Amino acid sequence: MIEKIQFPHAAPLQDIQLTNGFWAERQATNREKTIPSIYSFLESTGRLAAFDLSKDQQPPKFHKVVRMFFDSDSGKWLEAVGYSLMTHPDPALEHLADGLIDRMEKAQQPDGYLNTYFTVMETEYRWRNLRDWHEMYNAGHLIEGAVAYYQATGKRKVLDIFVRFADLIDSLFGPEDGKKRGYPGHPELELAMVKLYHATREPRYLKLAQFFIDERGQQPHYFDLESAERGEDPADFWAQSYHYCQAHAPLREQTEATGHAVRACYLYAGLVDVALETGDPSLLETARRLWDDLIGHQMYINGGLGPAQSNEGFTFAYDLPNETAYAETCAAIALVLYAQRMFHLDPDARYIDVMERALYNGILSGVSYDGTHFFYANPLAAYPKVSPDDPWSAIKTDPHYRRQEWFYCPCCPPNVARLVASIGAYFYGISGDTVYVNLYDRNRARIDIHGKMAEFEQKTSYPWDGDIEIEILSGEPVEYELALRIPGWCRQFDVRVNGDPISAEPQRGYVRIRRRWIGGDRVRLSLAMPVERMAPHPMIRQDAGCVALQRGPVLYCIEGTDNGEQLANVILPPDSQLSVVYDASLFGGIPVITADALRVGPSNWANGLYQPQAVLDYARTSTALRAIPYSLWANRAPGEMRVWIRES
Amino acid sequence: MIEKIQFPHAAPLQDIQLTNGFWAERQATNREKTIPSIYSFLESTGRLAAFDLSKDQQPPKFHKVVRMFFDSDSGKWLEAVGYSLMTHPDPALEHLADGLIDRMEKAQQPDGYLNTYFTVMETEYRWRNLRDWHEMYNAGHLIEGAVAYYQATGKRKVLDIFVRFADLIDSLFGPEDGKKRGYPGHPELELAMVKLYHATREPRYLKLAQFFIDERGQQPHYFDLESAERGEDPADFWAQSYHYCQAHAPLREQTEATGHAVRACYLYAGLVDVALETGDPSLLETARRLWDDLIGHQMYINGGLGPAQSNEGFTFAYDLPNETAYAETCAAIALVLYAQRMFHLDPDARYIDVMERALYNGILSGVSYDGTHFFYANPLAAYPKVSPDDPWSAIKTDPHYRRQEWFYCPCCPPNVARLVASIGAYFYGISGDTVYVNLYDRNRARIDIHGKMAEFEQKTSYPWDGDIEIEILSGEPVEYELALRIPGWCRQFDVRVNGDPISAEPQRGYVRIRRRWIGGDRVRLSLAMPVERMAPHPMIRQDAGCVALQRGPVLYCIEGTDNGEQLANVILPPDSQLSVVYDASLFGGIPVITADALRVGPSNWANGLYQPQAVLDYARTSTALRAIPYSLWANRAPGEMRVWIRES
Repeated sequence: MIEKIQFPHAAPLQDIQLTNGFWAERQATNREKTIPSIYSFLESTGRLAAFDLSKDQQPPKFHKVVRMFFDSDSGKWLEAVGYSLMTHPDPALEHLADGLIDRMEKAQQPDGYLNTYFTVMETEYRWRNLRDWHEMYNAGHLIEGAVAYYQATGKRKVLDIFVRFADLIDSLFGPEDGKKRGYPGHPELELAMVKLYHATREPRYLKLAQFFIDERGQQPHYFDLESAERGEDPADFWAQSYHYCQAHAPLREQTEATGHAVRACYLYAGLVDVALETGDPSLLETARRLWDDLIGHQMYINGGLGPAQSNEGFTFAYDLPNETAYAETCAAIALVLYAQRMFHLDPDARYIDVMERALYNGILSGVSYDGTHFFYANPLAAYPKVSPDDPWSAIKTDPHYRRQEWFYCPCCPPNVARLVASIGAYFYGISGDTVYVNLYDRNRARIDIHGKMAEFEQKTSYPWDGDIEIEILSGEPVEYELALRIPGWCRQFDVRVNGDPISAEPQRGYVRIRRRWIGGDRVRLSLAMPVERMAPHPMIRQDAGCVALQRGPVLYCIEGTDNGEQLANVILPPDSQLSVVYDASLFGGIPVITADALRVGPSNWANGLYQPQAVLDYARTSTALRAIPYSLWANRAPGEMRVWIRES
Repeated sequence: MIEKIQFPHAAPLQDIQLTNGFWAERQATNREKTIPSIYSFLESTGRLAAFDLSKDQQPPKFHKVVRMFFDSDSGKWLEAVGYSLMTHPDPALEHLADGLIDRMEKAQQPDGYLNTYFTVMETEYRWRNLRDWHEMYNAGHLIEGAVAYYQATGKRKVLDIFVRFADLIDSLFGPEDGKKRGYPGHPELELAMVKLYHATREPRYLKLAQFFIDERGQQPHYFDLESAERGEDPADFWAQSYHYCQAHAPLREQTEATGHAVRACYLYAGLVDVALETGDPSLLETARRLWDDLIGHQMYINGGLGPAQSNEGFTFAYDLPNETAYAETCAAIALVLYAQRMFHLDPDARYIDVMERALYNGILSGVSYDGTHFFYANPLAAYPKVSPDDPWSAIKTDPHYRRQEWFYCPCCPPNVARLVASIGAYFYGISGDTVYVNLYDRNRARIDIHGKMAEFEQKTSYPWDGDIEIEILSGEPVEYELALRIPGWCRQFDVRVNGDPISAEPQRGYVRIRRRWIGGDRVRLSLAMPVERMAPHPMIRQDAGCVALQRGPVLYCIEGTDNGEQLANVILPPDSQLSVVYDASLFGGIPVITADALRVGPSNWANGLYQPQAVLDYARTSTALRAIPYSLWANRAPGEMRVWIRES
């Protein structure tokens, strides 16, 4: 067994103060717009009132499948509130959350059970369909919310509620005689149980998470057994295969990321959580194998996962269609959860590279710049009348794929809210007296190094600029190692301490500087941030002949509003110069990329859809290409968008 | 009103004898393999036995939606048999058909009703959901089968059965007081009623077809009314909009082909049938407008229609994805029905160009070369684990999209069978003493010109060669005009009569030669048939930067078995010479297209899915490109396929 001490952990959210930079701005929008907006929708759609209903009271009219995971939305909102309060106390918001917690308490059944669907409707069907009915998924999000709120406020009430619920679940499921060998159809409870273990130190919760990981996909298959108990033929499973919920084989035998992308990454994150506690090498190996498949074969360049709407998930290696990319916001968030845990398990900057890719691109694209509208799917190209999350979109009145205020299945908005509220917790990893600096942005950190406080401040305009200064703040001198991440996208960098160059080569992606740091010390990291033409793997047939523009961690795209219609006919020649221009008028000021490009096409097209090329005159006319950060697309006039741009 | 005499009609199937050419071979396969194979599946799946069931007897286990149109499959098979018997008498086959007709007779209810679903199950739901429940659709195919079989054999029994059924329908639906103003949700009965009118001269059938055309989409909307009568909210229509069934507006107000592609073209064909009988100029105008939209904006280069699986139909103009092209075989067949009728309404070769495109490409691709396996969807590109008709295909065991022996919804196989059996009826159009020669292939024709027989024989290797000889056969000298179609794909041609050049320019696509034809006269038509690089309309974003290869009417494609994997990385440079090589080893001997091409890609790809182009070395290696006729793809080793080939 590996010693636990080897694993780094995240610097606590409370200890990181974002100051006036990129994420501080997004977090302010999240606090002021997103979290209140979500609460009002939780209220108006009956999700809060659902906690007040008793058996057989008429619930809001929703399809059963959606109604069944009402509680997860409230849980995620509570979690977002908890993180927000940790860094930005807000008595009014806390009061709102306390009100929700009071309702939760009343909804809890005497045995600890808490689920606003099965308490009100189909009460005899509790725990009878773990595969589809989301009781454990809801429980997981409620527990995550409870832990976050407890840690923020110190109020035990909500923790106690969900400790009772967790105890009920633990009494029903597990390897022991008399318990059922069930596990979540939609993973989530695994990682939540580990969080609850951390909050309470009750080892039963960790053991239950471990059981869920160990038992998944074992024979006789639990989902077969419970189907048969319901009188159903397991072969009639609507999703056709347990690949959908990653239960087609025991986890340690799985070699590819399959099925529903959010389920997959929540599961893998939970798996790593268990590995971090137990040190089980077979789990570490499994986590790495699945990671390598995911990142090596199935990830979009925006960090999005899961190309298919049909299963909200994976199809096969290198299959990455652009307009129909599902790339659910929640899946990119789940990838961040998985990535950070992988870094803890195996401290290597490559995990953070992926985390950063998802954060700046496929997650931020999920929320409008003003914080009130959301994407569920995050396609890599857009064309009027095409919607990646609705196969019937071509008949819709509004031809444009736009962010929405809310969804019938609104899993993504509160997920973005909790992620942005907790972003500070992704900045630093701590291992002994090493501080891994994983993300760059303006912030002040106070980090406990064996009882002494390392205090420093990052000053930077990252991600728009690659210069970062870390100033050690006044305080007692403390010896520790700063491990500066050299991002995978960076091909040239320079590190100086108090003006003196450091010549160290990065080890596993980090330049390590150990010294006795004194207030006023300055570390200067310069990351060369030219625009890169990113090439797709030659097996990605959908991107053949195209390049994507990336600068630092930021993926760019071209939109119709800047570049006209029919973006498929825009060509960026290989020798065309790419310039970075600061545009103060856009989104508070951003660098845009400009280039001389071409529009190609026949100048004498007559009638019909197909003509012999021999009768056509082809023209190439100059056009000015203008690219903006991908995450900001669809915030202006709606229209086409493309990440992958033809080169010839 | 236009005089009826102006409209050409088809030369009857009985009068055209295919001799030893392209279609004769396909027809033999159809007769010997396809028709018997379909019969055995009709039997083994319970479709024949369904006629023997009485009320409440247990039917075969099928989903209601599929079970409801069992009868259409039997109707189409009977129609195929009828056409086959017209040119190839076969007592055993006729005996089989007579047996089916006996079963149909027994299944008929005293009031004339005949439907094996609503007679056995949900008997109280007859005619209560014309929108979805396919009673009129089934009736149409049964009537088409009955008319064909009656015309082939002279046996009235089956005609009488369906005259009784038609009379029942006519007594229930129509504009008169006491009748319901309903019409088919799935069009088909319109054109069938016109056929029944032709067979019986009973004007009520024509009037009913006319009513269906006139009433469709009128307010108050019949589908709204019948929904309300069933206690349903019309807004809950599963297909979300009456665009799906072309009932969103009165037909004369419709401007675009919408919804389910087969429904659309059956409807438009029926509309033209009514226009041909009534001469109503507003219908002619409607038919032309919808045609122009269809062909100008929504047709694949293989003649396929309907890119989307979700609605089995149209999305929007120029939206023609390749791998996921649904392009249902039935839709291309429906297009042929529509095209021939358009030609009758408005004799112009442009309609036949489209018909020919569908026949040689998107329809023949629907059946294997051996006649026993079928495609439902006919994509323009194939990649392992992608199936255009199954969004869940990526999890299937067999990674390849292949033809199947049968389908759960088997509309396409018997549709191909009836089309191929009746192909002779598409060769010639007759208008007064003008004979339009629309299709070229070896055949002998005997055509009645005002009581005198014009007899001639076509000798050609078309579509593999552009030389056609028409020899006037012995018989009395007859004056008539031969109107030779100059296909739209042909940019250079030569016509000679008995060796003398004819210099006439084509009028509406036809070179017209009027003379008193004498046995031994020879018309020689030479159509230059180089390989053409076909360019896509610049609005078709999915084909940008690509060309398709076409020679004569035959579309070509490249397959993995000839060209290796990752066809997206194969480039056919614009200056690359295209050669035609006869390959005697393939499919009885076909011309294949070869060219020098390139494979492009980085030679030093390391890890990951995306890399800066700056670190890559790009290589272009020579490769021999080999293309085969598109309709023959997937008859050899399974793998990738592409119609649209990158040029750079």
